[in-house]
Amino acid sequence: MSLLITDATVLDGVSDRAQERTSIWIEGQRIRAVGGREQIPAPSSAQIVDACGKYVIPGLMDANVHLFGDIRMEHLVRHEGRYEAVIAESAQIALKNGVTTVFDTWGPRAALIRVRDDINAGKQRGSRIFCAGNIVGLDGPLSADFIPKTLEVASAGLVRRINSMFAENVGPDLSWMTPEQVGTEVRAYLARGIDFIKYASSEHRGAEPNAFLLFSPLVQRHIIEEAHRAGTTAQAHTTSVEGLRVAVEAGSDIIQHCNLTGPVPIPASTLAMLTQKKVGGVVFPLTQRRLEILEKRFDAIGRRYWSTVNINCRALIESDALLLLGTDGAIQASEPCSKNTADVAAEDDLMQLGEGHFNWLKAMEELGCPPLRMLRAATRNIAVAYGKGADLGSIAVGKVADLVILDANPLEGARNYRRIHKVIKEGRVVDTASLPETPVFKHSAVA
Amino acid sequence: MSLLITDATVLDGVSDRAQERTSIWIEGQRIRAVGGREQIPAPSSAQIVDACGKYVIPGLMDANVHLFGDIRMEHLVRHEGRYEAVIAESAQIALKNGVTTVFDTWGPRAALIRVRDDINAGKQRGSRIFCAGNIVGLDGPLSADFIPKTLEVASAGLVRRINSMFAENVGPDLSWMTPEQVGTEVRAYLARGIDFIKYASSEHRGAEPNAFLLFSPLVQRHIIEEAHRAGTTAQAHTTSVEGLRVAVEAGSDIIQHCNLTGPVPIPASTLAMLTQKKVGGVVFPLTQRRLEILEKRFDAIGRRYWSTVNINCRALIESDALLLLGTDGAIQASEPCSKNTADVAAEDDLMQLGEGHFNWLKAMEELGCPPLRMLRAATRNIAVAYGKGADLGSIAVGKVADLVILDANPLEGARNYRRIHKVIKEGRVVDTASLPETPVFKHSAVA
Amino acid sequence: MSLLITDATVLDGVSDRAQERTSIWIEGQRIRAVGGREQIPAPSSAQIVDACGKYVIPGLMDANVHLFGDIRMEHLVRHEGRYEAVIAESAQIALKNGVTTVFDTWGPRAALIRVRDDINAGKQRGSRIFCAGNIVGLDGPLSADFIPKTLEVASAGLVRRINSMFAENVGPDLSWMTPEQVGTEVRAYLARGIDFIKYASSEHRGAEPNAFLLFSPLVQRHIIEEAHRAGTTAQAHTTSVEGLRVAVEAGSDIIQHCNLTGPVPIPASTLAMLTQKKVGGVVFPLTQRRLEILEKRFDAIGRRYWSTVNINCRALIESDALLLLGTDGAIQASEPCSKNTADVAAEDDLMQLGEGHFNWLKAMEELGCPPLRMLRAATRNIAVAYGKGADLGSIAVGKVADLVILDANPLEGARNYRRIHKVIKEGRVVDTASLPETPVFKHSAVA
Amino acid sequence: MSLLITDATVLDGVSDRAQERTSIWIEGQRIRAVGGREQIPAPSSAQIVDACGKYVIPGLMDANVHLFGDIRMEHLVRHEGRYEAVIAESAQIALKNGVTTVFDTWGPRAALIRVRDDINAGKQRGSRIFCAGNIVGLDGPLSADFIPKTLEVASAGLVRRINSMFAENVGPDLSWMTPEQVGTEVRAYLARGIDFIKYASSEHRGAEPNAFLLFSPLVQRHIIEEAHRAGTTAQAHTTSVEGLRVAVEAGSDIIQHCNLTGPVPIPASTLAMLTQKKVGGVVFPLTQRRLEILEKRFDAIGRRYWSTVNINCRALIESDALLLLGTDGAIQASEPCSKNTADVAAEDDLMQLGEGHFNWLKAMEELGCPPLRMLRAATRNIAVAYGKGADLGSIAVGKVADLVILDANPLEGARNYRRIHKVIKEGRVVDTASLPETPVFKHSAVA
Repeated sequence: MSLLITDATVLDGVSDRAQERTSIWIEGQRIRAVGGREQIPAPSSAQIVDACGKYVIPGLMDANVHLFGDIRMEHLVRHEGRYEAVIAESAQIALKNGVTTVFDTWGPRAALIRVRDDINAGKQRGSRIFCAGNIVGLDGPLSADFIPKTLEVASAGLVRRINSMFAENVGPDLSWMTPEQVGTEVRAYLARGIDFIKYASSEHRGAEPNAFLLFSPLVQRHIIEEAHRAGTTAQAHTTSVEGLRVAVEAGSDIIQHCNLTGPVPIPASTLAMLTQKKVGGVVFPLTQRRLEILEKRFDAIGRRYWSTVNINCRALIESDALLLLGTDGAIQASEPCSKNTADVAAEDDLMQLGEGHFNWLKAMEELGCPPLRMLRAATRNIAVAYGKGADLGSIAVGKVADLVILDANPLEGARNYRRIHKVIKEGRVVDTASLPETPVFKHSAVA
Repeated sequence: MSLLITDATVLDGVSDRAQERTSIWIEGQRIRAVGGREQIPAPSSAQIVDACGKYVIPGLMDANVHLFGDIRMEHLVRHEGRYEAVIAESAQIALKNGVTTVFDTWGPRAALIRVRDDINAGKQRGSRIFCAGNIVGLDGPLSADFIPKTLEVASAGLVRRINSMFAENVGPDLSWMTPEQVGTEVRAYLARGIDFIKYASSEHRGAEPNAFLLFSPLVQRHIIEEAHRAGTTAQAHTTSVEGLRVAVEAGSDIIQHCNLTGPVPIPASTLAMLTQKKVGGVVFPLTQRRLEILEKRFDAIGRRYWSTVNINCRALIESDALLLLGTDGAIQASEPCSKNTADVAAEDDLMQLGEGHFNWLKAMEELGCPPLRMLRAATRNIAVAYGKGADLGSIAVGKVADLVILDANPLEGARNYRRIHKVIKEGRVVDTASLPETPVFKHSAVA
Repeated sequence: MSLLITDATVLDGVSDRAQERTSIWIEGQRIRAVGGREQIPAPSSAQIVDACGKYVIPGLMDANVHLFGDIRMEHLVRHEGRYEAVIAESAQIALKNGVTTVFDTWGPRAALIRVRDDINAGKQRGSRIFCAGNIVGLDGPLSADFIPKTLEVASAGLVRRINSMFAENVGPDLSWMTPEQVGTEVRAYLARGIDFIKYASSEHRGAEPNAFLLFSPLVQRHIIEEAHRAGTTAQAHTTSVEGLRVAVEAGSDIIQHCNLTGPVPIPASTLAMLTQKKVGGVVFPLTQRRLEILEKRFDAIGRRYWSTVNINCRALIESDALLLLGTDGAIQASEPCSKNTADVAAEDDLMQLGEGHFNWLKAMEELGCPPLRMLRAATRNIAVAYGKGADLGSIAVGKVADLVILDANPLEGARNYRRIHKVIKEGRVVDTASLPETPVFKHSAVA
Repeated sequence: MSLLITDATVLDGVSDRAQERTSIWIEGQRIRAVGGREQIPAPSSAQIVDACGKYVIPGLMDANVHLFGDIRMEHLVRHEGRYEAVIAESAQIALKNGVTTVFDTWGPRAALIRVRDDINAGKQRGSRIFCAGNIVGLDGPLSADFIPKTLEVASAGLVRRINSMFAENVGPDLSWMTPEQVGTEVRAYLARGIDFIKYASSEHRGAEPNAFLLFSPLVQRHIIEEAHRAGTTAQAHTTSVEGLRVAVEAGSDIIQHCNLTGPVPIPASTLAMLTQKKVGGVVFPLTQRRLEILEKRFDAIGRRYWSTVNINCRALIESDALLLLGTDGAIQASEPCSKNTADVAAEDDLMQLGEGHFNWLKAMEELGCPPLRMLRAATRNIAVAYGKGADLGSIAVGKVADLVILDANPLEGARNYRRIHKVIKEGRVVDTASLPETPVFKHSAVA
């Protein structure tokens, strides 16, 4: 099958300038040629997409999503045995909004792999998925690491079943082990088909007065080595300046939310090391509006925390760090949260899958990130940091043909990323209007 | 269709002595004749059940079950929209064990009515169901009245949906209202198809140091009047001597667990009033073994509470009170309870549907209840107290042919109730081996 | 000792009009004469208080205070063994602000009695105290009735010691008992020197969805009878329309906070009965400002609750009910509340002892209560309802000389009650500037 | 003042064999001579202690106590402003039981220092105190690090006051900081008069499924450097194999409870490093009886944890590690614990100050520790590890004269340590019978 996109302005994710009046010839899943129409031999039976006046960018990527992400107990129970349906719905919502590749950084491994493989095999539609399964060292959702109160309500059997789906052999026990023992478990986990390793450098309990490390630097090196030995990447979850510094020093390829460091900004030396080592730094920026919403909800300590988030973003933008777009994006049930969990207004929220990446771009624009750098953070940088640069993340001959065609120039305003004309994945125009196909989750509440 | 049971020893639930070598001729759903074989004209094409050496008793009844009774949050969620399946499974387990009629005294009204009507219409198998829906004045399961901790975990939407299925218009709001306002709501609730009214005289929070009343005597009279005006019965949930006295005085037809009065035994005057007014007194007796299990688990106050349970039982047995068998029976998921909720060993437990009524009979036998009185408590008394005596509860010409055929004489030992040879409901032999047909609940856990 | 107050405008608490240019001659603790100066024989050595241009009213009374009222665990512990000091401080703050008599309606009996007796014997300064000790049927502060969370922190020994100081023999156990048993305990408690009985008709757990009764009408009658037999009064704590109706019908002399009936206003029939039986109705009115503060903090149900408070107040004002001023007043430690207990702004709060009675008068004025009726609610009505009218509550020959001299006319504006010129208790001018003498509580926090 | 102990068997804490028929001449606070009676010039006016048939050992030391150690909220409040009295009482109970020097490893710094200085100045009696104040990185007692539930009960003011007494400038904030920032705070804290630094390598939340690190190795090195620069020692609180390894590698002089490593035994390499670096290893051994008590109370995971405690002890005994006696000893109020906190039977408990060191010796004996090694662990090793070897921990000319005279040979059975004949501190016989002088704590409950 051939597809010909004609006369577009192409932003290839690599070069510093747009290529105007450029056509892209796709054969099968890959790009066969890029250039002026006259340079491209018209394929005999190609589907033609006239992109005159449009802008073509690489398919967007999200370096941090959770396709099964609403882990409230009632959702874990309601969908038990059918997590694949929720994951597929999420992958379709992402794709509909221009995100052709997602990196799932915490979720139920087996179900994620099944959907990933089905999508790759063309049995199922949706964004291309790469997944980590569990965050090495953390427990499942019904635990002190995530939603401790559920332990007072859930049966022991439910706790065991659900948590074991997430934690498998790389749960909290690993924090008690020697570096060698941890390495052995990680190796076994890699053999279960995951695409990359994510581990906890800092722990995952944001609201506490203390910032803990989950693994010593030596253990972190053992984990990273196992990932590299298996030919893949390792990334760290960090939430404090030391959690960050240790992970970068230990050799993490990617840092999740490197701009979250509690009340203390990233020291210059750590920032320099991050940059020098070309570590992929996923950032969670806040729009001004979002910051205001959050600051209103928190006390002095919380406000210091949230204001540091953007202080770090600005420092990262000013540095040469390899920035990556990530959102923590998940689809949420349409039901309101628990009566006892105050809801933060959703406005400008990163975590709404399908919407969060647009908010990310808006926030970074507000913070002064140059347009081309933002485009790369949303495409090529992610591919490179995850070791997928040979195939994904840019528009060039031989690359996989994941593209988004926009009605307006994204370099002239981040809002233009929302003006999606067409999404193309693996050389085919996506029928976005029909996605998600079977929205089990969004409408799962009994009326 | 005709059925002829021949040469049995018949314990009809009414007379003081067994009728030996007696046959029962059933035409359609009802008994056409009872007597010596020679007295019964042989129907031409009857199915014959040779009951020589067997004992025939009225179908057993349980005056207090909860067909949807495992209200842990995970079960409420897992089966949401399919509560009928659980209710049907429960009704089938009851029937399999000889209980041909159950009175469901708290549950989701609409689902209960649907299953009740399907069974009555022959579309579904199971015990005959009469149901109360909500306990007037109480909230649904996700509330302070039942499992308060779930409120910290469940979404507001879930709480609203689930609780409204149970509470409808007769929830906790009623405790704030005037007697007239309560009457109006009860009238509206009766119009929704329930079979009888149950209301809370005492509240439903066993473990508290205080015993509260939920409704004043005047409100209770208004509730009872509405039930009587609608041609049905009203019963009270009571847990203290004043909760009991007030309910009896107000005119309740049945008292649920009249032997539960906390640490203070039923005063003689209250017992006399209960007897004189012929109120149906459901009791929850404890076997000696069960009492030992419970006493081991509790402190001095708890032990006083539990020992009073049997002190009251003995006093009730010594009185002429109209005793009724009730178990609070429900089917439990096969999963263990919450890690934080210590399990009481199930031995001799009343609350296991299908098993609890046997334990009731064992306990009452231990406490000195005469065998015939026990048989009536399990059959005729219940029918009479619920106003169903014309059709159910005894073996006589014209009654509905609900029967249990036992291999051994139940008057010689309560254990003989377990020796079920055949269960007959509405004139047909029940295929007990095939029940429950689709056990969704018992095996609902994902393996 | 003689005291002569000359040329005042006297509002005696009884008559409908002010007596101008009137003098009051006091001998010892009592009033010897009231009249024009010429009618009063000048005592030879009297202390003269020139009250020309001033207004003299009876000493104010508060029908509902808690002299030991800040029952947070840390205060219970810090002052353990020295509760008398806190109680004395409270009595002095009340007196300083014109309240010459307080009725303590829940507190540690033995300590209250000691301070009461010391004040009566002149060994200690402060308002005259009458006290109930425990609210019959309720537990002490470290319990589900008051601050349940403390049970997870306090040692068993502390819980036992503190609660037994409050509950003694009339705690929550009584709710399990028969009417006769309750009567026996109440009789024994009356023998311990309390001045009147307070019992719980409704329970004391405001935030719940259900409104419970603690005692049946029959038990309430037994309690009231015991109080009357002992020559004193009985009052009920009520929080719902049925809790109120039952208590009035049972014969309670006083109803605490009869205007608190949850979301349902007092029915006309109950209001008529309250009026006809001349029951003393303590009300807790809200200023408009206070209502706004509260409504902002609550959801729809809470708002309905709080708006009903004033609906009831207005109905009571329009009726002929015997209204009484009461505040629930207590002194609070200067420390902020628990981080987890949101503070309602103190503005127009009734519960600040020394301040609350002024807010009560302000609120009632806003609600349309006639000035003279307010004055009586703050003086004579309380004395009458508590059976102390022979000695207290009005200005007349033979009465105890408890007086407040104001700089401005209280009938012209409730704010004028704040303009205290002098407080006279038992015929002596109180040195208000020196009160409280040893403020242990207000300054108990270690700096 | 002179003191002469004559004809004792001396176990000096250093040499491998007992010196029989040996006398010790003390002048002032120090030992002037040790030897046969004939070698010691009889001082003219010395007090003579005839120790014929007795055994003299160095004064016992405890490397880990908490002189203010019962941190339940009610005790923190009751004694607020008077913590010195509790600390003095503890120091006297320790001294009475032969412990002449204690190292307080967590407590309210200012109060500890005041008592320490008073004892050193002879104004107060009690064990010699060296203290750390706070554990660097941890919060005060009313916090997630110690008793989280108190936060739901305590006022914000109380939380602030109490916690700041413990945490000062080296609380949980430090876990968010850079290594340099932490160093600065530790330096400032050292200037406040503490005797040594204790910091948290592992966190302090035993019951959790995860084992966290509080400080990275680099931060730990900064802390230790500050201690060494100030001329004192640094020790680490560790609870996992990595927490231990990291602390030893970072250069900690002492490890608190190095045998507590959760379910994973200490790796051989870590044990070798600990030994090679001559790190003082405080151990918390369990008697067989104690282990049985604990194992009965816990599930499989807990049992694995507790059995590892003694596995580590045995490995440490078999190694050449520098073992130190420590108990976590504190005096407990005589009141039972919270109803909700199950009590572990006190039998063979280390944590009972005054008793725990005897239990330590009993446990180590059971575990096979040679008698002389135990004696050194309880004396000289502690002095050496804390840098006090020049003055304390052994019997030799020039050393401070802290001695215990026993009636029986401690090398023949650990039980003989209990047979105290006399305690000598700084050359004076302690009047042990009169200790504790004013036991405020043990009897502080109001009767």
